Amino acid sequence: MISVGILNVSGYIGAETARILRRHPNVKVTSVTGRSAAGKPLSETYPHLAAYDLDVVEEVGDVDVIISALPHAAGAPALLPLIDKGVPIVDHTADFRLKSVTEFESWYKVTHPRPELLQQAIYGLTELHRKEIPGSKLVAAPGCFPTGSVLALAPAWREGLIGPDIIVDSKTGISGAGRSADVRYNFNELDGNVVPYALGGHRHMPEMTQELSALCESPAPRISFVPHMVPMPRGILTTCYASLAEGRESTTIEQLREMYEEAYAGEPFVRVVSTPPETKQTLGSNLCLIYVTLDHRTNRPIVVSALDNLVKGGAGQGVQDMNLMLGLPETAGLDDIGVYP
Amino acid sequence: MISVGILNVSGYIGAETARILRRHPNVKVTSVTGRSAAGKPLSETYPHLAAYDLDVVEEVGDVDVIISALPHAAGAPALLPLIDKGVPIVDHTADFRLKSVTEFESWYKVTHPRPELLQQAIYGLTELHRKEIPGSKLVAAPGCFPTGSVLALAPAWREGLIGPDIIVDSKTGISGAGRSADVRYNFNELDGNVVPYALGGHRHMPEMTQELSALCESPAPRISFVPHMVPMPRGILTTCYASLAEGRESTTIEQLREMYEEAYAGEPFVRVVSTPPETKQTLGSNLCLIYVTLDHRTNRPIVVSALDNLVKGGAGQGVQDMNLMLGLPETAGLDDIGVYP
Amino acid sequence: MISVGILNVSGYIGAETARILRRHPNVKVTSVTGRSAAGKPLSETYPHLAAYDLDVVEEVGDVDVIISALPHAAGAPALLPLIDKGVPIVDHTADFRLKSVTEFESWYKVTHPRPELLQQAIYGLTELHRKEIPGSKLVAAPGCFPTGSVLALAPAWREGLIGPDIIVDSKTGISGAGRSADVRYNFNELDGNVVPYALGGHRHMPEMTQELSALCESPAPRISFVPHMVPMPRGILTTCYASLAEGRESTTIEQLREMYEEAYAGEPFVRVVSTPPETKQTLGSNLCLIYVTLDHRTNRPIVVSALDNLVKGGAGQGVQDMNLMLGLPETAGLDDIGVYP
Amino acid sequence: MISVGILNVSGYIGAETARILRRHPNVKVTSVTGRSAAGKPLSETYPHLAAYDLDVVEEVGDVDVIISALPHAAGAPALLPLIDKGVPIVDHTADFRLKSVTEFESWYKVTHPRPELLQQAIYGLTELHRKEIPGSKLVAAPGCFPTGSVLALAPAWREGLIGPDIIVDSKTGISGAGRSADVRYNFNELDGNVVPYALGGHRHMPEMTQELSALCESPAPRISFVPHMVPMPRGILTTCYASLAEGRESTTIEQLREMYEEAYAGEPFVRVVSTPPETKQTLGSNLCLIYVTLDHRTNRPIVVSALDNLVKGGAGQGVQDMNLMLGLPETAGLDDIGVYP
Repeated sequence: MISVGILNVSGYIGAETARILRRHPNVKVTSVTGRSAAGKPLSETYPHLAAYDLDVVEEVGDVDVIISALPHAAGAPALLPLIDKGVPIVDHTADFRLKSVTEFESWYKVTHPRPELLQQAIYGLTELHRKEIPGSKLVAAPGCFPTGSVLALAPAWREGLIGPDIIVDSKTGISGAGRSADVRYNFNELDGNVVPYALGGHRHMPEMTQELSALCESPAPRISFVPHMVPMPRGILTTCYASLAEGRESTTIEQLREMYEEAYAGEPFVRVVSTPPETKQTLGSNLCLIYVTLDHRTNRPIVVSALDNLVKGGAGQGVQDMNLMLGLPETAGLDDIGVYP
Repeated sequence: MISVGILNVSGYIGAETARILRRHPNVKVTSVTGRSAAGKPLSETYPHLAAYDLDVVEEVGDVDVIISALPHAAGAPALLPLIDKGVPIVDHTADFRLKSVTEFESWYKVTHPRPELLQQAIYGLTELHRKEIPGSKLVAAPGCFPTGSVLALAPAWREGLIGPDIIVDSKTGISGAGRSADVRYNFNELDGNVVPYALGGHRHMPEMTQELSALCESPAPRISFVPHMVPMPRGILTTCYASLAEGRESTTIEQLREMYEEAYAGEPFVRVVSTPPETKQTLGSNLCLIYVTLDHRTNRPIVVSALDNLVKGGAGQGVQDMNLMLGLPETAGLDDIGVYP
Repeated sequence: MISVGILNVSGYIGAETARILRRHPNVKVTSVTGRSAAGKPLSETYPHLAAYDLDVVEEVGDVDVIISALPHAAGAPALLPLIDKGVPIVDHTADFRLKSVTEFESWYKVTHPRPELLQQAIYGLTELHRKEIPGSKLVAAPGCFPTGSVLALAPAWREGLIGPDIIVDSKTGISGAGRSADVRYNFNELDGNVVPYALGGHRHMPEMTQELSALCESPAPRISFVPHMVPMPRGILTTCYASLAEGRESTTIEQLREMYEEAYAGEPFVRVVSTPPETKQTLGSNLCLIYVTLDHRTNRPIVVSALDNLVKGGAGQGVQDMNLMLGLPETAGLDDIGVYP
Repeated sequence: MISVGILNVSGYIGAETARILRRHPNVKVTSVTGRSAAGKPLSETYPHLAAYDLDVVEEVGDVDVIISALPHAAGAPALLPLIDKGVPIVDHTADFRLKSVTEFESWYKVTHPRPELLQQAIYGLTELHRKEIPGSKLVAAPGCFPTGSVLALAPAWREGLIGPDIIVDSKTGISGAGRSADVRYNFNELDGNVVPYALGGHRHMPEMTQELSALCESPAPRISFVPHMVPMPRGILTTCYASLAEGRESTTIEQLREMYEEAYAGEPFVRVVSTPPETKQTLGSNLCLIYVTLDHRTNRPIVVSALDNLVKGGAGQGVQDMNLMLGLPETAGLDDIGVYP
């Protein structure tokens, strides 16, 4: 068995990675780190992980591969020595997602500790970067919102079918905010509530722009992105609104659907569906469901995607990346059926 | 006391009307109708209404004013004789909302029983039609989605500040679907779920178009509207995305906000807020909260509104209409503070 | 208008008091205090209270009556001078609920700052202490759990119908834990979850024992009380299990129900219902619903009560107390219909 | 691979069986039946099961083993011929759970079609009947409530440690009511609500009595059982209250815990925990968590259990039974880590 270390198992992404790997046929979690939980059994932090019988430690020790769920920026100091040692790493922060250090520093308000790594790291959205991952030692798992929106937009955007004016409206479960002791995430404040946020700009936006631009350089996409918290722990539903590009106005709904079906044919975890998807259909699974239609009154393409933010939008995508890095079957350990209802 | 009859108290809008009127200083509910519940105490259908000590009846009897929460189309036969008798009526169906019989018949797939009434009926969005309501005998209370979206868009649209390409993305609680025995609204299917629907077109869309067009005839608005069910009983949050109109591109965020504050200054139930509103801030109250901003990266105006679909988007708006019809204080019986948390 | 000051409006009980008093015909909230929020508009702490247009202050100033929602023990220093001044006070802490200073100190682990006040303060469960409240200057509003359980048990206990072995199993919404920044109350941890707690003893237990003992001194009740958090903000459902007392084993279910109906006949806010009550039937109202039955297989009386912990189990009960203290109609400002659904 | 047929895949237990078996290493679902869904792809009934690529059929056809999730009583006619053919069957109805035909008929109000099978069928609570299952062709999977309560009570009851007066108070998610088109299970009616039901007697009660009596014949247990719906799809938390039996009053909490730990030592899916369990810790897993304590004020043992009603209280227990019947590893295909949060 290949040994895996999980950095910062105390967060939801770390814990979810542990859950998923429990049934992975080729790897075994042998070390889990955490700051405040160090020295205690993992089951004290997360009773649902009691089957593991592992203690949380401060330093990861020797492992074959690392999945890091450390917080943004703060995590880099711990990660850099491991990168230097050449241990294969899947990193869940934004530290290595953006290719432009300027973009990174302007959105995250920190100086990047090692900008040269930005070009080496692979953006781990498997469906777009499958071929680059196997040879890499550092994969930056994508943000939860970019996963759903880029997968929703890529097929039409790549073909120049849609113009650059794009609205991305996301509805997310609360686990995206982490296991936080903040009154804003108190149950009472969020149950029965819809909360729009980050209207001045969300850090996941530059990932969307970067990935679309990489598919089709010109024109530059002009995305407005507004995320909304909805009262559920998991799941992101993203509704993308675009316009048909100049010269492509006669595209039919059938052509659109066919384009999407072809784009994702054979993908193990992206499914183009014929009725609007619901987040709950993906709960606990690594699936991203995509529905595309054309608003016949305005001729606007509308694409809806649904996924579990902690799986395909988080820990599951990370395991998919790890599988590719290690030469394992891409689907190993990953579910294609969610827990419903 | 003025006597009020509620038609179809069995639905959520009817029941909510009864709740609100319980504390109205000038009117008293003296008759409530229902089909299957007829002959039984109201408390059997709705235990929370037990304070009323009324039986549900089949026919409304003599009352001074009627609030009808009958279902679309099916309700008209019961309502027409009452209209003919000249009883003041607030109607919660779509039967009298649209001015164009063609639009009505194409969206609702029924022949209108009395098209000439469409011109006489007043669309009861108080903030836009306040002056027309007092003289009217028939007010069509607006749909829940148009209430939030038209109030969000009206100030900018009326001034020609935004262009005709508009995206309306709504997140609604489940009570909008009524007290329905349908597996789609079963608790298990919706809890922890976001469900987009009506992507082929929602019946509330023509109301939005009609009301915006009435404010500013040209150009015709081109709205894409997608509603999403989110796991909560009440509340609608609507996010509207537009573009600055040609020639208005230099509008600043401050100008936008000022325009909105002026537009709704003095309104008892529309509040322009300086931080993004949340649906739960309006629960049980007749408020509609509106937030306007400008996405500085794309220069797109984004307007967010929040309301309780059963109050300002339903029964509360109906009572506000009734107050105006009867010459009572517009705010009588209506709350400006919601139940939180 | 009588002026009211609310101490610690930042907590849910304080905020709920403000909501309720907004429509009270005889009193007006003129001063609201808070620690961290002092100097800021109330709407910043609670946007749903924006209609108030009040700033939070540090010191309450001159008011005719005070409702205190300060935290247990910590609040006493602020309250004592006001008590000494003779301002009528409704206090929502446990500081003045228990008659026995020993009991208080053993459960709350603090020295009571003024034990002699314990005998002067009235336990503000209106249905049991209605006559003592008008003459009092200090009313201790009951805990949320004792309200539901004592009202459920009192009629049978007072008559000696049930024996001393009593199980009280409560299911509570999360607002009982307050507006807390604690990861245990994070939305993700509680949504979709049932969490039993305080199995070693809950501080509301001695209130139950005290109030039952006051009704019928012997035998001493032997209560096991287990509260459980369920995923909703408001509401407590309490299921009480007892045995028929020796010599009363032939009591019929009809006799039981009659006893309860008589006990609460004429009560404006306690309703004995003929089908099991649900918490949501009371949301936002001051009602406590009670259902009594006899398990015919075991001959055990089972009594179920439902209420809104922030209203009849909190702020609403406090207003009811205040009304009685001030000689106002007991029901003034209080709703007998909840917000449903 | 062993072929499995699922009868009535349209219900939640059927669908959950399909989900679980998707990753079972030794068996493969080859046939799924349903009435109204017959002839359509399984993904139309349950989009989350789309990975299966199976059509729903009317008749199960040839399979090696059957898991039946047909409704009570109605299902027997379809099942009897298969029983006669000797196909190994795990049945999720109550049809074969009770040994006494009188009890069955009095609770279920139908004549049993084949009473002699009641003695042959094994009650599939693995922890109590592990040895009887391998040789059986007909296993009756237990009800969801008896699973949690019998596992909670068995260790103390078997040893005569607790007396016969037992209170079982359960809090259940809504999926226990099935995928029902009934207004009582409409989202709006249940969200934010606690609903006690079956106070006159619940059909799962005789299973509890039967199983406890089988462990210790005398005295007969006198159980009062009240289930409550709480607003979540999955999970049952059961709180059991008992008394120490005569002569055992000096039992300590340490002795109690030791007794429980010994009773379940080595059990793969029952875990005796040292802090009160929460339902969400079991979501999607086959675990039953048990916590035992002694209320030191009253000397009453209190036992709390938590499980996922669709897994250990349903489909998961059924797969555990199937594994034993077929001589497979008992844990095959079953998770010991839940989906959290």
